[in-house]
This record gives sequence, structure tokens and C-alpha cells, in this order.
Amino acid sequence: MKIFGLKEINKVLPKLDLLPLIKEGFRAYSLGFAVVPPVGELVFDKPQGDVHIKYGYIKGDDYYVIKIASGFYGDVSSGILPTQGGVMLLFDQKTGKEVGILVDECHLTNVRTAVAGGICAELLAPKKIDSIGVIGTGVQARMQVNYISNIIECKKVKVWGRSKISVEKYIEEMSDGELELSNATHTDEIAESCNLIITTTPSKIPLIKKDKLKKGTLIIAVGSDSPEKQELDEKILQEADYIVADSIAQCIERGEISHGLKNNIINQDQIVELGKLIDNKKNVNCADDQIIVADLTGVAVQDIQIAKAVYKACERLD
Amino acid sequence: MKIFGLKEINKVLPKLDLLPLIKEGFRAYSLGFAVVPPVGELVFDKPQGDVHIKYGYIKGDDYYVIKIASGFYGDVSSGILPTQGGVMLLFDQKTGKEVGILVDECHLTNVRTAVAGGICAELLAPKKIDSIGVIGTGVQARMQVNYISNIIECKKVKVWGRSKISVEKYIEEMSDGELELSNATHTDEIAESCNLIITTTPSKIPLIKKDKLKKGTLIIAVGSDSPEKQELDEKILQEADYIVADSIAQCIERGEISHGLKNNIINQDQIVELGKLIDNKKNVNCADDQIIVADLTGVAVQDIQIAKAVYKACERLD
Repeated sequence: MKIFGLKEINKVLPKLDLLPLIKEGFRAYSLGFAVVPPVGELVFDKPQGDVHIKYGYIKGDDYYVIKIASGFYGDVSSGILPTQGGVMLLFDQKTGKEVGILVDECHLTNVRTAVAGGICAELLAPKKIDSIGVIGTGVQARMQVNYISNIIECKKVKVWGRSKISVEKYIEEMSDGELELSNATHTDEIAESCNLIITTTPSKIPLIKKDKLKKGTLIIAVGSDSPEKQELDEKILQEADYIVADSIAQCIERGEISHGLKNNIINQDQIVELGKLIDNKKNVNCADDQIIVADLTGVAVQDIQIAKAVYKACERLD
Repeated sequence: MKIFGLKEINKVLPKLDLLPLIKEGFRAYSLGFAVVPPVGELVFDKPQGDVHIKYGYIKGDDYYVIKIASGFYGDVSSGILPTQGGVMLLFDQKTGKEVGILVDECHLTNVRTAVAGGICAELLAPKKIDSIGVIGTGVQARMQVNYISNIIECKKVKVWGRSKISVEKYIEEMSDGELELSNATHTDEIAESCNLIITTTPSKIPLIKKDKLKKGTLIIAVGSDSPEKQELDEKILQEADYIVADSIAQCIERGEISHGLKNNIINQDQIVELGKLIDNKKNVNCADDQIIVADLTGVAVQDIQIAKAVYKACERLD
């Protein structure tokens, strides 16, 4: 059983073209070529944390993959900092034997989530982006912006975060001479001025209001990946011309869409699955009079695709 | 992240007194001190195989544990032999960080299952055992007999298996000068002559019939751990004076008890949980006029307890 850590993973990542691989994963999933059981979940109280186990396989592949990713919020009084952790395990699909472990410490989950945001931007973004708006200042707020700003070629970014210090840090650390970064003092400012909005927080209270949102906007909702998390006023879903889910089965249980369904604001048949859109090979660029919401809860096929590619590349390292 | 393989695991196992540890795990589980989500499952067709993901934690412990165990049935025409595989992963309960991996290739799952059989024998077996009967000739048929024959001090063992060659091999390989081994030509012979019966096959058709079973018998049902597997005629459950489940929540979904419940042959309130019996500190030795069935589907607390003990012992190795 071969084990690769972040050192090897970071060496091979820049050489991999992940976007088409993960697109293919979503497509296989939506067309029924993948076996993806419900997400396993462990929740902790003291300190707060949650662990997601995502697993499955694409039929006929060499491997099946089990991914474990955690986010713990730390305990300031005991000096325990917030941390992300995790591993991806590959097993032989014909014998079940353990093949390899990527001790990625959640990094590959972050990367494949950013890539999914990139796929949504490519397929769904308005043709002209005034400004990218980002809610949150954490890892995804950074990776999504870095990834998406290359795909849609908009360099204006407005950021909102709960803590002033985190926003300042975000702007300082994201400044690379290319991005034009500014801060928003309220989430409404993001809704009013940006037409590609990425939400990346673990908020349990909606942060983006329907009334403030302008037409011609794509929202990529990344933060809400468990039943209690919610970043969007659910009325936004009612208003949306397209509601795109990475996985309909998962979005019934968790994420933004689940709130809309539970409160009977939307019906399941209004939801389009990302892999179906990819299979159609036709981009649905958000028109000036439309609103599109893409809800990303994170699907095991993304983990399967990135784990296979990274593992094979690590094996080829000297 | 420290990684230990079978070499280290086999070095520390003989030094560990697992029975009280796993008893304590069952007790913690039944008293609500453990968090154990539903079992994750992956099923494969070509070749046939299944993977179980069992995970959880005992509140206040240092670690949480995720266990992956697989059984693949091989593909004779392609020369692929049946195999077991798996790993146990330990993570920090306060930060989620990955701590260690035991690449046990399913061995610790086998051991903790045998220990659970031992616990059942200790608590539930008739005071005088005429003969141990074992259905199946695989790993569990061996480990359960080795473990249980030391606890109840009965050395007579009758074995039944589907293949004559496997039975002969079983008898030859299990002969250690202490066990008196003989073969049964039919499962009825086991039912008629043994008063401690261990069932260990992946059968989907009941192998032990109610009419053949004599009073004063304890059955430890180990083989059925998924919804479709069944080794006991469900009428045996109706006849039983005690129906003991390692986990009531799991036995509703899988194992012998699930068939009795689905067919309305027994009610959920007739089932006693193993950890509750352990907490009572009173053995329920099967009386001459009783039948007791213990249904073991395998609970994550067993994996948690064995993983912690083995990992800590491996860490102390030079």
C-alpha cells in the first residue's frame, strides 16, 4: 500500500488538467455510471467539528475511492486552532485490496471543490462579469476566486467577511498584481454590485437576500454542505431561472436546495443536475434577465476523479 | 501520521486482553456514550464483493475511528482468488487531524468479531456444552471456535461446510491436539447434536431449521451482516427465549433479526441489546428448556476499541 503526502501531492497537482476530469466525473454520475452511496457524517460538539465520508466508484474503473474530510472549528480558550484534515483511500475494484492513501489533509477536497466552481462558471456565468463577489474569507473564498478569475477573466473581486481582520488579511494575501480587490461592508453590497457571487461560509443564517439581488447574476453556493447550513435566502431559489445541483440526491438532504424543498418553495423537478448540463455540451450563460443558482454540496465522483489522477501521477514520481 | 501493518499488529495482538475492552465498547454503545452512524456500504457485481464502512467515537475519547473492511468473492475464471481487505483509521477527536492507520487487511475485524462471539459465549452459553457446532469453514469458523473453545472449555467441535474439501481442510488445519473435530454431512446434524452453534457463512438461504433445533441451545449468528444474508430459519427467532442483538439499530436493517422483523415474526421490543446485558453484570446462561439467539452484525464500537488498543500498543513498539 503506497502512501503519498502533501509534498508529493503538491508536486503533481500543477501538471494535472483537472477540469475535464471532474467534468467527466459529474457526467458519469448523472448518467448513472457511478455508484455513490449517501454521505457518511460524524458530528462533534466540543470542540465543534464535522467529518464527511464520501465514497463510491465509476463502474469499470480500476479503483474505488473512500474520502474522509474534516473541518474542526477549534477551541480558542484551550488554544486549539481551527483545522481541516483528511485522507483519500484507493482500493482495487476487483479484489477490494487497499492500493494507496493520499494523506491530503483536506487539500484535494478543497481543490476539487474549486474546480467544480470553475465548471459552473464556465457553463453558467453571464458573458460579461462586472465583479466577482465572494462571501467569506477562508480557503474556499480564496481557491474559488483564484480558479474562477482565470476561467471568466474578470479581475475585479469584492469580498465580505464577518471579521474585519480576516477581510484585510484576505485582500492583502490575495493581492497578486492582477486581481483588483475591495471589501464590502455588508453582504447587500455584494448582492447589489456583483453578477457572479460565490458563497463559502458555514453560516446557518441566510446572508444573501432576494430583494437585493440583481438580475443577470450567477450564484455559486459552496458553503452549505450539511442540512443545517444555509447562505441564501430560499426565496432566491423561487426566483431562479435555473437551479443547478451537483447531485440532486444529495441536495434533497443538504445544501441550499434542501431548504427550498423542505419549505415547499421549489419542486424537485425544477432542479437540473450539473452532469446532465455537461452531457448536453451547451453552455447556459446567465442572461441579463435571469438568475442562476448552482448548489455545490460536493459529490464523491469529484473525489474519485481527483484521487485517481493524483495517485497515478504520484506513482510516476521518482 | 503513523502507519502500522500486519507485522506490527500481529506482534502486539497476543499481549492485549481484548475481551474486557470490547465488552466496555458494547456497554458504552448501549448506554448512549457512543456516536455510531449507520453503516456505509459499497456493493460490487463483477466480481462480487462488498465493503463496509463502520465509524464513530466514544464521547470523551482521544480518537474517532473509521474502519473499512471488504470481502470479495473472486472470479475463478480470471484466476482472481477471494480476498479480504481493509484498514482502520484513527483521527483526533478535538481537531479531526489524522493520527494513524492500521493496515490490518481485515484481520482486526475478524479478531473483534471472534471476541464478540466470545463475549456471547461467556454471557449466554449453556452451563454444559455437549459440542460446539460450526456452520462454515472460513476465517470466522476458525477464529470463533478457537476463541470460544477457550472460554467455555468444550473441545468437541462438529463442522459443516458446503465443500467436502474445505471441511477436510478445516479439520486438518484446526487439529491442534486439543480440539476433537468431526464433520457433519448435513446442517441438521449440527442442529440435532450441538448446543452451542456458530453460523459463519454468507448464505442467503437459511441453513439451520427450527424443527431440528434442540432446546438448551445458544446460536451465535455471525455470518449475516447485510440485508440479504440469512443463515437461520426466522421461526427460530419466534421460538427463542432471548434474542440478543449487538446493535438493535443495525439489526433492524441487517442480519438474522431483520428478517424476523420484516416478516412480523418478532417485535422489536423482544430484542435485548448485548451492551445492556453486559451492563447488568448478570450472565444469562441458556437453560435446558431455552433457546437463545445472539445476532452479531458487527458494530463500530468494536472497531473503535480494538483500533485504539492496537494502535497504542504499536506506538510503544521499538
